[in-house]
Amino acid sequence: MLGLSQKPIIKLSYNQLIDDTVCIEEPLEIILEFYSHQQLKRETIAITMRTPGNEKELAIGFLYTEGIIDKYEEIDKIEFSFDCAQDESRNQQCVIRLIKNKFIDITKHKRHFYTSSSCGVCGKTSIDLSLEQCPFILIKSIPKIKKEILLQLPERLKINQAIFSKTGGSHGVGLFDTNGNMICVMEDVGRHNAMDKLIGYVLINNLIPLQDQVIVVSGRASFELIQKSLCIACSIFIAVGAPSSLAVEIASEFSMTLVGFTKNNNANIYSCPERIITI
Amino acid sequence: MLGLSQKPIIKLSYNQLIDDTVCIEEPLEIILEFYSHQQLKRETIAITMRTPGNEKELAIGFLYTEGIIDKYEEIDKIEFSFDCAQDESRNQQCVIRLIKNKFIDITKHKRHFYTSSSCGVCGKTSIDLSLEQCPFILIKSIPKIKKEILLQLPERLKINQAIFSKTGGSHGVGLFDTNGNMICVMEDVGRHNAMDKLIGYVLINNLIPLQDQVIVVSGRASFELIQKSLCIACSIFIAVGAPSSLAVEIASEFSMTLVGFTKNNNANIYSCPERIITI
Repeated sequence: MLGLSQKPIIKLSYNQLIDDTVCIEEPLEIILEFYSHQQLKRETIAITMRTPGNEKELAIGFLYTEGIIDKYEEIDKIEFSFDCAQDESRNQQCVIRLIKNKFIDITKHKRHFYTSSSCGVCGKTSIDLSLEQCPFILIKSIPKIKKEILLQLPERLKINQAIFSKTGGSHGVGLFDTNGNMICVMEDVGRHNAMDKLIGYVLINNLIPLQDQVIVVSGRASFELIQKSLCIACSIFIAVGAPSSLAVEIASEFSMTLVGFTKNNNANIYSCPERIITI
Repeated sequence: MLGLSQKPIIKLSYNQLIDDTVCIEEPLEIILEFYSHQQLKRETIAITMRTPGNEKELAIGFLYTEGIIDKYEEIDKIEFSFDCAQDESRNQQCVIRLIKNKFIDITKHKRHFYTSSSCGVCGKTSIDLSLEQCPFILIKSIPKIKKEILLQLPERLKINQAIFSKTGGSHGVGLFDTNGNMICVMEDVGRHNAMDKLIGYVLINNLIPLQDQVIVVSGRASFELIQKSLCIACSIFIAVGAPSSLAVEIASEFSMTLVGFTKNNNANIYSCPERIITI
């Protein structure tokens, strides 16, 4: 299965050598080709450590949440290549060519990548940047979800996390409708990658802005995940783990319903509880 | 307490408004001042979303693991400033000035930050880069740790995670000696930050290369955490969660003992089991 690797381990309690399955972490280089003054230019815009699978969605979701593309139609073609020359680890490249009449200011984006070195986001302008990147205004009254359905979603996510069930080593991000039906589940060793994969899926399937769908994440709710979710107009964000202070602040600011610690038939609602039907 | 924020929440099962404590996530801008051709230059080298506390250690650990400084003595002075002008969120800056005769090639580092946008590491050269950044060769036979002590370390880490105990929302990284005595525990909303804080502590306290100390992390073992730990010659790395494939490969390559799933009186040893005394 894609994303899995076998490693010999010793189980300490039995002192026995057995085979274990771990989640693959491998580099993917995302290369952008774009036209500038009639010339085709080529730039590496990111090298991300990710779990193989859904590279197309990952690259497209990344370009969208970084503000490089606004819609799927701005992509002319996507190509993948493997380079096995140097060592055993595969160096995979994903080359995305934009359509001819799509103008991008690569200097601006480079500056953003540069400042975001430490973990995927430029925090300096946090709320301002989110405002700039979120092209949607969420409507406070919709969608709504029943408490009983909401509380079941983490379990529904978990049973669809194929890599996690074999490794315990991946993050899961799922898209469900408000009736609890699964639309898509993505997994990755990095939670921001799992989210980019999901966003790429949403973009390819023309589901932006989200309507009656909710996002469920297997771990914590960071600023970065909330910010990415806002880019596709997610109104209800459900985390199994804790949210950070900034996640709560951004969610409140943008009228997103943020739910955390969704487990053991309980949950904490951090913002916009009006979208949750409790009676 | 530093790093904590109060937020009103609704507990879904009781439908009751109460106060909850969340872990603070806030930007820290790390600015480097260095001499180039007798002139003092100033560059923002990172903006990281982190939990307040131990900023000095965080910034120094970051500079060290990025290869900008080799020792604490290369730092001339460190200054902090808060900018509350624009919005409620504090924009904290940490300005680090290097000593006059420390030469750095900022272009090289910028290029590295740029390619590492997606999550803190440049994966392209993974093993090569680790080789380049790790100035130490680990000795396979030392240090050793008793199985019984090893299995207690996650609990000892947990009881020293003050922010986690109140929020459930932070990562912990601890340094212990092989007798199980705690040397230092750092916490942060980002696990790479918690690790940088610990490495900064180790550098400031002149503990590099590590001798009979082990690192314990509350979550998973990623490539990035293993790579950072190698920079301080960590021989034994213990994770409560799963390791990734690349974490296992790098640990094996560098003769580091990597232990994962350390819980419920059991653990998996992924590399160099000879450092663990099981009888």
